[in-house]
Amino acid sequence: MNSSDNKRILLAHGSGGRMTHDLVEQLFGKQLSNPILDRMDDAAVLEHNGRLAFTVDSHVVSPVFFPGGDIGRLSLTGTVNDLAMMGATPLYISAGFIIEEGFLMDNLSRIVASMRDAALEAGVTVVAGDTKVVERGAADGIFITTSGIGSIPEGVRISCSAAKPGDVVIVSGTVGDHGAAILSKRQGINFDIQLESDCAPLGGLVEDMLSASENIHVLRDPTRGGVAAVLNEIATSSVVDIEIEDDRIPYRSNVRAACELLGLDPLLLANEGKLVAFVDADEAGLVLDAMRRHRLGGDAAVIGRVDAVETSRPRVCVRTVLGSRRILAPPTGEQLPRIC
Amino acid sequence: MNSSDNKRILLAHGSGGRMTHDLVEQLFGKQLSNPILDRMDDAAVLEHNGRLAFTVDSHVVSPVFFPGGDIGRLSLTGTVNDLAMMGATPLYISAGFIIEEGFLMDNLSRIVASMRDAALEAGVTVVAGDTKVVERGAADGIFITTSGIGSIPEGVRISCSAAKPGDVVIVSGTVGDHGAAILSKRQGINFDIQLESDCAPLGGLVEDMLSASENIHVLRDPTRGGVAAVLNEIATSSVVDIEIEDDRIPYRSNVRAACELLGLDPLLLANEGKLVAFVDADEAGLVLDAMRRHRLGGDAAVIGRVDAVETSRPRVCVRTVLGSRRILAPPTGEQLPRIC
Repeated sequence: MNSSDNKRILLAHGSGGRMTHDLVEQLFGKQLSNPILDRMDDAAVLEHNGRLAFTVDSHVVSPVFFPGGDIGRLSLTGTVNDLAMMGATPLYISAGFIIEEGFLMDNLSRIVASMRDAALEAGVTVVAGDTKVVERGAADGIFITTSGIGSIPEGVRISCSAAKPGDVVIVSGTVGDHGAAILSKRQGINFDIQLESDCAPLGGLVEDMLSASENIHVLRDPTRGGVAAVLNEIATSSVVDIEIEDDRIPYRSNVRAACELLGLDPLLLANEGKLVAFVDADEAGLVLDAMRRHRLGGDAAVIGRVDAVETSRPRVCVRTVLGSRRILAPPTGEQLPRIC
Repeated sequence: MNSSDNKRILLAHGSGGRMTHDLVEQLFGKQLSNPILDRMDDAAVLEHNGRLAFTVDSHVVSPVFFPGGDIGRLSLTGTVNDLAMMGATPLYISAGFIIEEGFLMDNLSRIVASMRDAALEAGVTVVAGDTKVVERGAADGIFITTSGIGSIPEGVRISCSAAKPGDVVIVSGTVGDHGAAILSKRQGINFDIQLESDCAPLGGLVEDMLSASENIHVLRDPTRGGVAAVLNEIATSSVVDIEIEDDRIPYRSNVRAACELLGLDPLLLANEGKLVAFVDADEAGLVLDAMRRHRLGGDAAVIGRVDAVETSRPRVCVRTVLGSRRILAPPTGEQLPRIC
């Protein structure tokens, strides 16, 4: 990176990978530092007559309508999922709309209807909203920022920094669906079976998992930067090594085909209806059974395990079918902008 | 309005006036209707082990840096003030950043520092954040959406629909400062004394007011659409007539001069550090004294009163110095886009 790159915001700063991490840590984290923000989990945990989870997500996905969803559904489920990843029961959502002058009223109506349907599905209520309109050319169609409040049940302590050696790594289903759907829609690529975003609210699945075991240590939804970004964040926060096995990761065959065709690593693609869980090995079977009984966890699988750190730097490895191991680095640049 | 105007979003839909009201009521309100959202107050009131206020505001102000503040300070105080207008103690803030590729890192840093300073001033903590980057040309610099949580003290019941005949209308200080500052900066107009935004967090002022009286019925911050929009909303929600007296409204002399020069009504200009209060007449003196003792209420003044509705349609009137009365309509079009 040359010096002029340091002076301006690049697309890669929004990738969910290393540059996002550095920007958040060095600029936002330093200036706004406080014990709650500093935990850098998916949602803040507030002590207020019991524990509340509080989170925010801006959505700038392009195109606004894509196979399997739209920016309305995405913005609702994205925030619901961030709350669920703290083990919280998602309750209330606020939504700030930034709309470009000239945007079709019918499309806005479709988007809001889609938020409503997703809210019903997720069991949350949209209780506050704001609308701003900017001149033609000052935004790209519509951006939606949602914030959410959830209630964390007594006893639940889930955090990105709670993974322990001996934990197994579970993924709730096929990996890379959302990223592949956006990419194929944007590039106009057609496959025999259409690629569809997995965009879905995960609160119910998490509730079932928490009922099955009290030893779920980490939950994360692998959105921007995909499974690779999330596993690396967990390894760093928990100071552990993580090893996953390539042939255990569930993929849709058309997602795998699309990635091979386009030279993409599906572990870097965004998911919007999947989670990664780190669970005490003794209870992995119970959790996996509960997940598979849920409509959004039918393809749940154990994909790896946690080890004590071998070197000074926590790392994530992938063991291939042939038995070799490669480091799974977090994404450094921007593989696919405007993914969510 | 012709039929094609109905099919697309116009700048006026973001004005804070009648078109915003219609869009919110007919599109968002209908689709997302629920008892909490339907109240359409500045913040939602949630019953959760006590009462919480929850609100959201997107900020698209142009220019990003203006006399008296910047988008960082504005986005923090805007949400703090919406919480304060419910009588809540503002506590926690989340912030979603949408940044255009190429935005200067130094400017981002200044903006975040400014949020930090405003948070200290307001006594709130920024506990959650999100950053998205869009391609050059897909946004105009930076947009910030803040959401906030506050705690509503026992016994406080403030709402837009609680104004009663006999209440007096108080404004906390000079009117139109923010709008005039943005306008003059944008148009490159220079006055002898520089126009400055009043952008400030009002939580402390509200706390002092609530200590002085239990009979404050309505609090609103007159942002987009100004005092005219807010008074009309209160008249409609509370089903009352409101009369204000022109010569009692405090203005900075340079704001008045700028409005005369540009043919603007200062009652339509946005404020970002002022509030309008509706108070039982018997306690207006107590409230006014408390306001004037606060650094942000030195120019507080009674500007009008509430009457029972005379006709079937609640209305807001201004009595001029000469004794004549004119209807104060809510803004219909877009006087000044991207004001906040």
